[in-house]
Amino acid sequence: MSKPYILITGGAGFIGSHCALVLLEHGFDVVVIDNCSNAYLGSSDSKPESLKRVEKLTNKSIEFVKGDLSDCDNLGSVFKKFNISCVLHCAALKSVKESWDIPLSYYSNNVTGSINLFSVMSSYGVKKLIFSSSSTVYGDPQFLPLTEEHPTGQNCANPYGRTKFLVEEILKDLCRSDKDWCVYSLRYFNPVGAHPSGDIGEDPLGIPNNLMPIITQVAIGKLKSIDVYGNDYDTVDGTGVRDYIHIMDLAEGHAAAIKVLLKEKGNAGIFKAYNLGTGSGSSVLQMISTFEKVNSVKIPYKIVGKRAGDVAASYCAVQLAKKELGWQAKYGLAEMCKDAWTWQTKNPKGYQK
Amino acid sequence: MSKPYILITGGAGFIGSHCALVLLEHGFDVVVIDNCSNAYLGSSDSKPESLKRVEKLTNKSIEFVKGDLSDCDNLGSVFKKFNISCVLHCAALKSVKESWDIPLSYYSNNVTGSINLFSVMSSYGVKKLIFSSSSTVYGDPQFLPLTEEHPTGQNCANPYGRTKFLVEEILKDLCRSDKDWCVYSLRYFNPVGAHPSGDIGEDPLGIPNNLMPIITQVAIGKLKSIDVYGNDYDTVDGTGVRDYIHIMDLAEGHAAAIKVLLKEKGNAGIFKAYNLGTGSGSSVLQMISTFEKVNSVKIPYKIVGKRAGDVAASYCAVQLAKKELGWQAKYGLAEMCKDAWTWQTKNPKGYQK
Repeated sequence: MSKPYILITGGAGFIGSHCALVLLEHGFDVVVIDNCSNAYLGSSDSKPESLKRVEKLTNKSIEFVKGDLSDCDNLGSVFKKFNISCVLHCAALKSVKESWDIPLSYYSNNVTGSINLFSVMSSYGVKKLIFSSSSTVYGDPQFLPLTEEHPTGQNCANPYGRTKFLVEEILKDLCRSDKDWCVYSLRYFNPVGAHPSGDIGEDPLGIPNNLMPIITQVAIGKLKSIDVYGNDYDTVDGTGVRDYIHIMDLAEGHAAAIKVLLKEKGNAGIFKAYNLGTGSGSSVLQMISTFEKVNSVKIPYKIVGKRAGDVAASYCAVQLAKKELGWQAKYGLAEMCKDAWTWQTKNPKGYQK
Repeated sequence: MSKPYILITGGAGFIGSHCALVLLEHGFDVVVIDNCSNAYLGSSDSKPESLKRVEKLTNKSIEFVKGDLSDCDNLGSVFKKFNISCVLHCAALKSVKESWDIPLSYYSNNVTGSINLFSVMSSYGVKKLIFSSSSTVYGDPQFLPLTEEHPTGQNCANPYGRTKFLVEEILKDLCRSDKDWCVYSLRYFNPVGAHPSGDIGEDPLGIPNNLMPIITQVAIGKLKSIDVYGNDYDTVDGTGVRDYIHIMDLAEGHAAAIKVLLKEKGNAGIFKAYNLGTGSGSSVLQMISTFEKVNSVKIPYKIVGKRAGDVAASYCAVQLAKKELGWQAKYGLAEMCKDAWTWQTKNPKGYQK
């Protein structure tokens, strides 16, 4: 049998590329499949720039396949060519805002794409999976901190979150029906920051939707100021509180999860969910002021009306991941702000040259 | 513009074929797309036997396209060829039992198939849809009778039910995002019986899963006796209570819904759910004794253990459909039993000759 690989779907994206880097550092071999819908392809070949940089940073190589999860034949060819031990399924559309406008694209990419992936995995006997889930599956928190036992799917705030919930439901049924499946669903809170080198990072197309890329684009002068949605929430300073997690912590969480997952014996039909967050929440204004202080820049902002569907506060319980995966976040807001800014200043146009 | 058609997906099946018949009787023109996975194709051509019989009974013709909802190109060609005013989306795998064994096939057929259909409809500007939903979306009833406001998706008893719930969620988002969509989701309780002619009816592959086809197969000697799952539920006689509805009533409910739906103006983004049931529950033993009396046959049964996931009783509130669709069920258990038996005795091997 040839050497085992971890397959990362959507591995050229923000989360996927950082996971690829960390997995390579941990000695895993990595295949990436990505449709590059949101990824810059450098110059002559078709490997996305993000992965070329990961190769440079690690001095290791990544196998890359360009392809979409809608194409089951292409997907099958990956499993035929490589000995895949485990799949890390990051591929998804991820804009909350966009998901309101084009929900069918979200369901098609995120749900149909997942069903296709699981079907192909099943037919090749590959049944260990890490799923990129999201704290949005919890909907409006009934209690804080959010534990993995918090109900899911009730009042999911947006179609994007619902796609993540639906895929979790599908995975639960899959693990009940076929005991060879072992699935960890990693529920991300708010991943921000970048690799400390500043060579890879978040490269949103168009105007970003998430706080940190907006902050860095304001800091560099691409955007004028930040709209802060509401300042009368019941939080420390009235602005929304979220559990931001450094992308390097998040990626290490994946490596930890994969190591435990690979040791799981088949025949138990395991579906487990783990929160990946720091366990503490920060407000929008705290993030802005930390960014200003750490990076000695000024971030103009203005308070505007609340957005429908936004919750006041969301942060997670971290005990389960600590206990069962032996992982916890190490970095705080300062490192998140510093590394995000290094990435932005080294790459004012993202991956584009 | 050429004359308008109602497109019925899965139109060769039990519910689809009876809907086709009733819609033809109401003067609609009908196109059916069906993959015939569960339908007998008579002799030389590819039109399923059920639809040939509908044509004979109505003296009208049905346009038929063989195809699966996984094939978007084929689906698109139907919208290109015919002027579709409204889609009745019946196509789905429907065995609760099987859905536990092969959930991915259920998600792929029922969820991916629906996403494909909605995408193709959207691209052809056809945005009126009747969805074949199910009372299983309600899960374990929190109160009876089940109104359309009862929570859905919580503790859905099985993957089949979850596929119906997921598609409803997708449709809600679709109607929120694009105000031209008008969707009625018809939540079927337990459709049984057959057209009174006995020429069309339910023709399950293999050993049937539902009570009525089991009763008729016991009556005709194909099966020895009925397993009754539990007789200590908190019901009239301890056996499970369900809201059985005559298939002809159900089909009339579709005709009523389509007439109202076609009058809905675009630009409201309407998603409405309607229960289709009689509003009163019958126990397994009541159904058996009614069948025996009406048809003068003996139905041996034995009490066996309860099945996981079965609820004691389920029946619906019928007011909403009566008020807004002007429809209510007319037939009782006696007609259901009589017509099911006529179908079975006239067609001991189902549609197969």
